Amino acid sequence: MPPEALTVDQLDEKALLARIFPRLGPTTALVGPGDDAAVIAAPDGRMVISIDTLVQDADFRLLWPSGYRTTGYNVGWKCAAQNLSDINAMGAVPTSLVVSLTLPGSTDVAWVEDLATGLAAGVQSLTLNAGHCSVVGGDLGRGSQIVVTAAVTGDLEGRAPVLRSGARPGDVLAHTGALGAAAAGLAVLESSLDYSIVREEENQVLAGLVASQNRPHPPVHLGPRAAIAGATAMLDVSDGLVRDAGRIARASGVAIDLDAGYLASRAEVLAPAAVRLGADPLAWVLGGGEDHGLLAAFPPDAVLPEGFVRIGDVAAGEGVTVGGQAPSTIGWDHFAG
Amino acid sequence: MPPEALTVDQLDEKALLARIFPRLGPTTALVGPGDDAAVIAAPDGRMVISIDTLVQDADFRLLWPSGYRTTGYNVGWKCAAQNLSDINAMGAVPTSLVVSLTLPGSTDVAWVEDLATGLAAGVQSLTLNAGHCSVVGGDLGRGSQIVVTAAVTGDLEGRAPVLRSGARPGDVLAHTGALGAAAAGLAVLESSLDYSIVREEENQVLAGLVASQNRPHPPVHLGPRAAIAGATAMLDVSDGLVRDAGRIARASGVAIDLDAGYLASRAEVLAPAAVRLGADPLAWVLGGGEDHGLLAAFPPDAVLPEGFVRIGDVAAGEGVTVGGQAPSTIGWDHFAG
Repeated sequence: MPPEALTVDQLDEKALLARIFPRLGPTTALVGPGDDAAVIAAPDGRMVISIDTLVQDADFRLLWPSGYRTTGYNVGWKCAAQNLSDINAMGAVPTSLVVSLTLPGSTDVAWVEDLATGLAAGVQSLTLNAGHCSVVGGDLGRGSQIVVTAAVTGDLEGRAPVLRSGARPGDVLAHTGALGAAAAGLAVLESSLDYSIVREEENQVLAGLVASQNRPHPPVHLGPRAAIAGATAMLDVSDGLVRDAGRIARASGVAIDLDAGYLASRAEVLAPAAVRLGADPLAWVLGGGEDHGLLAAFPPDAVLPEGFVRIGDVAAGEGVTVGGQAPSTIGWDHFAG
Repeated sequence: MPPEALTVDQLDEKALLARIFPRLGPTTALVGPGDDAAVIAAPDGRMVISIDTLVQDADFRLLWPSGYRTTGYNVGWKCAAQNLSDINAMGAVPTSLVVSLTLPGSTDVAWVEDLATGLAAGVQSLTLNAGHCSVVGGDLGRGSQIVVTAAVTGDLEGRAPVLRSGARPGDVLAHTGALGAAAAGLAVLESSLDYSIVREEENQVLAGLVASQNRPHPPVHLGPRAAIAGATAMLDVSDGLVRDAGRIARASGVAIDLDAGYLASRAEVLAPAAVRLGADPLAWVLGGGEDHGLLAAFPPDAVLPEGFVRIGDVAAGEGVTVGGQAPSTIGWDHFAG
C-alpha cells in the first residue's frame, strides 16, 4: 500500500506557504511577498488591473467523465493564462499577479505544490517576450471546494489602452491564437471516451486538444504589438468568437462580418476530432471559449503584426454575420455555443 | 405566504451584473469596469497591491449559533475593510478594488445586491479621508459556497512603504483602532445566547461588539499619517496583538514589551461582555483578530499622529512580552488566541 498522501489539513498556513513560495520563482516586486501588501513598479503612471477566478466543478473538474485527472499544474497554468490574457487584450504588458487559494482540507499538498509550479511556469513562459512579471503576493484559506483567484496588473508603456469601443467602419478585423481548440478539448474531457486509451491511440489529435483546454497559450506578447500597430479595438476571445465579436460590434457601434472561408479552414483542422466525437467543428470555431486568442480591429492601411490574420471586416451597422449570413443560418446556435 | 425569493440561478451573468453595477457607485477608474481590464491612475510610479478572501463557513456564517443572520451588506463591508486595511498598513492610500464573487445558484439575489451595497458603502466610508477609491472591476462565477475575493491597490504618494522590518531598539510602539472588540463579537455570535434577545436587552454592549466583528472600521486615513510621522515599522492587527507584534519583532530583529496597564484598561471595557459569556477579556485584547487597527513603531522623538496611543516599547532582543512577562504567564495561550 502506498503511504497516505499529506493533505492540506495536516499543515498550518505557515508550513503550507513554505512549500508554495520556493515554487513561485524570483519575485519582480519592489517589496514582497511577506508584508501586508506588495509594492510593484508602475512606470507609466497608470496601471491596468483585472481579476479572474477558477472554481472546481464549474471551471474545471478534478476527475472528468473521460477519466482524465486535472493536475494542479494545469489549474495553476490556466489561472496564469486567463489572467495574463486580460492584460494582453488592453495592449499592456503584465507586471504582477496576486493569487488567493481556497482549499478543502482534504486537498493533497502535492497537488497544491504542483499548482504553484504550474502558476509560475505559466507566468514565466507566457511573458517571456512581454515584460517582467511574477506572483508578488497571495492569500490562503479553507473552503469546501478549490477556488483559485488571481488579480493581475499591467503596464501600458505610455500607450493608450485598446478598448472594445474603438472599431470604425472600414477597419480590418484580425485574429491571432487558437480558435475552437479549447472547446474541442473540453468536449474530449466530457465525452465517454476513455482518456487512458485516447492518450495512447491518438495523442497527436485529441490529447493535443485536451492540452489546449487545460494549458492555453494566449499570445501575451502580441497585445502590445497590436496596440503599437494602431489597433482600434481589441479583446481576448474567452467566450467564443461570435459572442466576443458581438461585444466589439456593440461597444463600437459597428457591424462585423466574419470570413466564412477562413473560418471553414480553421474548422477543417478540428474535423478529425469532431468526427470522433460526433460534433460540429464549425460550432467549436464560432462558439468555443477559453482559447484566449486576440480579436482586434485595425485601420485599413495598418500593417498587421506578425501572427495576426485577417478574419473579417468592420462596416457601418450592427451585429455579427458570417459571410454575410446570420450565424444561426449556418448552424451555430448562440445558446449552445 | 411570501413570494419565492429570486435566486442567482434564475439570472444570467449579464442580468446579475446589471443589479450589481448601479450599487457600486461612481467609478474612480480611468477606464472600466466593462472592458477586459480596468485602468487606474498610479501617479507615484509604484503601486501597492494585496489580495484577501472571505469564505462562507470559514470566515463568516450565514446563520450563527446565536441565531444571527449575516447580511450581504456586512460581508461586502468586511471585504472592503480587511482589504483597505492592508494598504493602510503600508502607509499608502487605497486607489481601487477588483472583486470576484463565487456564488451558489441558490443565493438570494437580494443578498448579493446587499453585498454590493455594503462593499461600496465600506469603500466610501472608510476612505472618506484617504484618497479616491472605488470598485473598478470584477468577476462572477458559480460555486458550492460563497467566496468573496478582493484585490486592492494603493498609492504611496512619493513616500517609502512602511514595512514590518524597520523597528529599532528605543522606538515607541503605538496602536490605533479597536482591540479585542471583533473577537468579543465573534464570541457573542458563536455563543448559545439568543441574538434576538441580546439585541433587545443589551444592544449597547453585545450588539456593538457583534458590529465590530461584522463591520470593522479600520482607521484607513491613519496609515499614511503614521508614515509621514516617521513610523519605522507597521502592520494591521488582523491575527491578534501578540501574534502581530511578534511579526514586527521577528522581521525587525527586536524585542517588544507591551504595556500591561494599558492593555488591562482596554480589557476593562470588554469586561461586562466577558462576564456575560464567561470569557477572559484580556485574552480578547491580546489574541483577538480582525480588528484591523494599526500597530506601528515610531522613533523616540516622533510626535504620534492623533489617534495613536503608546502601547509598548521596542528594545534589543527578541520576542514579545507584556509588562516584562511572557504572555503565557499572564494567562494568554497562543494556541487558543
